Amino acid sequence: MSEKARVIFQPSGRRGEVAKGISILEASRQLGVDIETLCGGRRICGKCKVRIEEGYFEKYGIDSRKSHAGAWQEEEGKFISPTQREEGYRLGCCAQVEGDLLVFVPEESRAGKQVVSKAARDIPIEWDPAVKHYYIEVPKPTLEKPTGDLERLLEELSAKHGLNGLDIDYRCLISLPDRLREIEGKVTAAVWMDEEIIRILPGENTNSYGIAIDVGTTTMAAYLCSLATMEVVETVSMMNPQCKYGEDVMSRISYHVSNKDGLQKMNADIIEAINSLVARACESTHPPKEKDKRMDYDGYPCLTPTDIMDMTIVGNTTMHHILLKLNPEYMGTAPFPPVVHKSMDIKARDIGIAINESAYVYVLPNEAGFVGADNVGVLIAEEPYKTEEMQLIIDIGTNGELVLGNKEKLISSSCATGPAFEGAQITFGMRAAPGAIERITIDSNTHEVDYKVIGRDAWKRYSKPDEMQAKGICGSGILDVLAELYRTGVIVKSGRFNPRQTSNRYRKNSEKNQPEFVIAWAEETSIGRDIVITQKDIRQIQLAKGAVYSGCKLMMRRMGIDRVDVVKIAGAFGNHVDPEKALIMGLFPDCEIERIVSVGNAAGDGARAALLNRKKRQEADWVSRNVQYLELTVEKDFQQQFVEALQIPHMKDAFPHLKGIVSTKVLNQK
Amino acid sequence: MSEKARVIFQPSGRRGEVAKGISILEASRQLGVDIETLCGGRRICGKCKVRIEEGYFEKYGIDSRKSHAGAWQEEEGKFISPTQREEGYRLGCCAQVEGDLLVFVPEESRAGKQVVSKAARDIPIEWDPAVKHYYIEVPKPTLEKPTGDLERLLEELSAKHGLNGLDIDYRCLISLPDRLREIEGKVTAAVWMDEEIIRILPGENTNSYGIAIDVGTTTMAAYLCSLATMEVVETVSMMNPQCKYGEDVMSRISYHVSNKDGLQKMNADIIEAINSLVARACESTHPPKEKDKRMDYDGYPCLTPTDIMDMTIVGNTTMHHILLKLNPEYMGTAPFPPVVHKSMDIKARDIGIAINESAYVYVLPNEAGFVGADNVGVLIAEEPYKTEEMQLIIDIGTNGELVLGNKEKLISSSCATGPAFEGAQITFGMRAAPGAIERITIDSNTHEVDYKVIGRDAWKRYSKPDEMQAKGICGSGILDVLAELYRTGVIVKSGRFNPRQTSNRYRKNSEKNQPEFVIAWAEETSIGRDIVITQKDIRQIQLAKGAVYSGCKLMMRRMGIDRVDVVKIAGAFGNHVDPEKALIMGLFPDCEIERIVSVGNAAGDGARAALLNRKKRQEADWVSRNVQYLELTVEKDFQQQFVEALQIPHMKDAFPHLKGIVSTKVLNQK
Repeated sequence: MSEKARVIFQPSGRRGEVAKGISILEASRQLGVDIETLCGGRRICGKCKVRIEEGYFEKYGIDSRKSHAGAWQEEEGKFISPTQREEGYRLGCCAQVEGDLLVFVPEESRAGKQVVSKAARDIPIEWDPAVKHYYIEVPKPTLEKPTGDLERLLEELSAKHGLNGLDIDYRCLISLPDRLREIEGKVTAAVWMDEEIIRILPGENTNSYGIAIDVGTTTMAAYLCSLATMEVVETVSMMNPQCKYGEDVMSRISYHVSNKDGLQKMNADIIEAINSLVARACESTHPPKEKDKRMDYDGYPCLTPTDIMDMTIVGNTTMHHILLKLNPEYMGTAPFPPVVHKSMDIKARDIGIAINESAYVYVLPNEAGFVGADNVGVLIAEEPYKTEEMQLIIDIGTNGELVLGNKEKLISSSCATGPAFEGAQITFGMRAAPGAIERITIDSNTHEVDYKVIGRDAWKRYSKPDEMQAKGICGSGILDVLAELYRTGVIVKSGRFNPRQTSNRYRKNSEKNQPEFVIAWAEETSIGRDIVITQKDIRQIQLAKGAVYSGCKLMMRRMGIDRVDVVKIAGAFGNHVDPEKALIMGLFPDCEIERIVSVGNAAGDGARAALLNRKKRQEADWVSRNVQYLELTVEKDFQQQFVEALQIPHMKDAFPHLKGIVSTKVLNQK
Repeated sequence: MSEKARVIFQPSGRRGEVAKGISILEASRQLGVDIETLCGGRRICGKCKVRIEEGYFEKYGIDSRKSHAGAWQEEEGKFISPTQREEGYRLGCCAQVEGDLLVFVPEESRAGKQVVSKAARDIPIEWDPAVKHYYIEVPKPTLEKPTGDLERLLEELSAKHGLNGLDIDYRCLISLPDRLREIEGKVTAAVWMDEEIIRILPGENTNSYGIAIDVGTTTMAAYLCSLATMEVVETVSMMNPQCKYGEDVMSRISYHVSNKDGLQKMNADIIEAINSLVARACESTHPPKEKDKRMDYDGYPCLTPTDIMDMTIVGNTTMHHILLKLNPEYMGTAPFPPVVHKSMDIKARDIGIAINESAYVYVLPNEAGFVGADNVGVLIAEEPYKTEEMQLIIDIGTNGELVLGNKEKLISSSCATGPAFEGAQITFGMRAAPGAIERITIDSNTHEVDYKVIGRDAWKRYSKPDEMQAKGICGSGILDVLAELYRTGVIVKSGRFNPRQTSNRYRKNSEKNQPEFVIAWAEETSIGRDIVITQKDIRQIQLAKGAVYSGCKLMMRRMGIDRVDVVKIAGAFGNHVDPEKALIMGLFPDCEIERIVSVGNAAGDGARAALLNRKKRQEADWVSRNVQYLELTVEKDFQQQFVEALQIPHMKDAFPHLKGIVSTKVLNQK
């Protein structure tokens, strides 16, 4: 027996060599597979169930024996029924890697983090949270000086920490007399903005938690942070439950206008969702040993929502309004005014958010009716107002938000991209989930297609057809396909299929009476049908990219410039996008390819920055007032600009950086 | 038929001449009798039922005929059953005064204000309420300037009224977008402390309401005021429902300590009581035409609790703590520290008070564990800190609070009077309610007793015995009795009955084996027994007055003075007390009789002052910090002082102002 064994995890397809003798759970960690575990591998939570795939094993050419997963452990019997044991189920923490293995991770055992690309980035943030802890020792009252509890507390906070004129939250005051008498007056006060005491803890207590929330139209993410170390302790995400009322912001507004309690319902959904994100983040940080117990498996106190002392929230203006139960109706018609621009500090209890009842929620300010607090989040994370270079920031979610500027001036605008980049309105479009084609290249000569699906590292050319299990095409794949079809001459600048086709992938769909191009043959899919891109799909993508491109152009015109120094692509979309492909398909005006960068979920980063540094909140208010909003639809020749922008790439604009990437012949075609 | 007729109202006994032809309701108003009426005499509410007392009539020697109350009106049939009609019932608004009448007002028709003496006084208050109304016209947003609703509002408030940097209550913000679009941007903003917008009303709206609340240990009162005109629109009062948990503050604290949810229960009671006071005050101001309708009988919009935009509250420290759900436990043991001294601005919604949800409640500050916000109320109403003269302010409720001082210095203290002055622990003691003996004089020679009962204007000597219907003795009567017994030599300085008695009212009660003195013979009472004062009763009164007197003395010693310029007696007790009697019985050290004044419910006046003038709030905080609290029980020779103070009057002190009132012989007795 060698020292190493090969392990493949399904459905993610992650594989690699690990040392023999480690648990499957440990192997999953080493190979980057997220298996749920609450007890941290202590064989007591039963969450890490996996299935040893004996039957499928031989297909992969790996020598398989049941014993490769080690002997059955007594503890596994508590969580795995005899029937399940027959089917090959084991606990990841009990089963050992004793030889090569194929392990299937069932849906319920997946920590499920790989799908939503809203991971926090490592942006530099200076420590200065709104909520800070101060330790003090409060003397007892005496007959000579029978001063009240609060007054003695305030006196110490002033003497020891120079905090003067502090207020105290009424609910927090209720806890004060008993807290003061727990450990002889030794307490830690959590103080908000050096203005208001919001929690009294017994003894010395340095750590404290806050959570930054990104409410997207489609997905929501929460970053649980230590306010002491600034570390992102946990990231959790989920679909926005409002999706059932409509895909985009306009349909949400319509739902409110046409349903008496529409706003009420959508508000309740979003509050409940935030509360569940908070609860999940707490639970996975220090999971409790037993339900309702306040100790975790290691004997440390669990984190509960009551321990969350601060929250910051970003979201587009419509999400912002629904979250705060503000009527979004008037934002739906020109001139699209929001109810409020400025940032809000609201007691969590006033909007039903279940963190500490005395804590505040800080909601970032809005720029305009269609450029909201999420964009302000992007701005304070990226800080274009601090640089000389001219930055173009593109945040494509369900809606597109654009910012152009530098330290001299900032312009923002909003463009109606529609949901094409998110997979909607595209025949085989789907969200960025396992099985989605996320990368596509087409051979210039043969027009053969190579692609990669989410959840499988190996590209098609390195795989057998039935290993691909493709299900559809997600946003980045949709962007790739347009760029590649154009680059290889399968389609022309106008977006139409080139009539001179040689590829057998090109065909006329007689049913729909339109041309289409096959990306994946039926045998490579899990759906048993060819995955194609149709002429109509291409038109949808063009409309989306045209909206972005013309927006960029109009902003540049307003700014009086004809080129930008940097292009930053934000949002989940940005994580997956290939800068070169984005440039080829003409998503934005020409830029040096090395200067086209993905900045991930910058809106969420902004929320986190505001959580960990209160000066960022001032910056947010400042920038929201100082960015100039450009309403594109009322710009002169907006329609003309948009139509021209449908071209791949824009026919009147120069794209020096495409030279060498796209052949001159293709570029120069009319 | 003459132009005038005589009308007597029972049970109050109020009588007088009124013009013939007016309604009985109108006659009741002219004679100061409070008959309930919601519709204001429009014959539609049926609340003003009275009984024309035909049978009793002849006793009073008045010519009586049924027709004296005018013809039966059709509307009366809706509220008065045929049986009731037989008994002589009529509606006060329908029945007319056509001749002399005796009218009985049944319990349910009495507005019931005569009993609780917490009427507002006419103290000078400068207009500067915390909540003010500002009218503005907010322009619409345009495509060129699509500014948010709040920002446009703020801009106008700044431009028109110079209000800058205003905040807005989150709940109020919710109403903004629709309000702005009701009358083309014309709105009135209610602004708290020129800091925070708490209500948006459509159009121009000058009037606004606030309510001042006095939470006494036994009774609660509410003064509904117009914040525009400062007028007291309505005064309502009720028993403190916490009385069921104990009579005084210590028993309330004990109830909390010995019952797990004691504080919770008492808090719920007090909040519910305040809410019912608010609702009653609103209802009687503009009673609604129909239930749940927002128009009154005159077509004016009704006042609802939502229209109350500000509230101020006074109460002793224990009431204060229970109101705010603050643990009062530690205040029950030395050194008696309260949880908080400083005043609090709390959102009404945070403590469950049902006024406008965005409104604040201002709770006045506490001086010490036993000198609370009620005393601060007294201070800002009486302003001793603004005068040269040395004032002694005595507030006797269930607990006694004393203040001594002038513009140089202020001292306060608390003394355990016990409930004797409120009628408890006195054999025939009772509250100030109809039938209570409130005034007593004893003839120096014959020792015959004359007295007056609440609800009847005529003294005993002007009445037939069975007209008196006495039930017991209330606080002021209790004070009178001690003074009179002493002045007439029935008891001696030590409080014992003088062994040389000639009055047949003096007797030994064999059952209780103690001497007693008859105040009212059985035939004068409604209880069929002699109402007496016993030796033990006298001892109880001495203990109460001794506590007050020794408190005053110790404070004067601390202040370094031996006489005061003014004595002010506050509280319901003060309304009824006879200054001369109070001086005779030795409630406080000597003072010119003309300078002993009753200041009524000064605590409530202070709450009202804080409601109508925000500078009074600063004054309250200032004075609560600057009044020096003297803990009497730890003063040197406290016990000695107390024992000496039991004497009537204090044997070592000079009482020059008693000369001529009390004979030298009595004064000099040992």
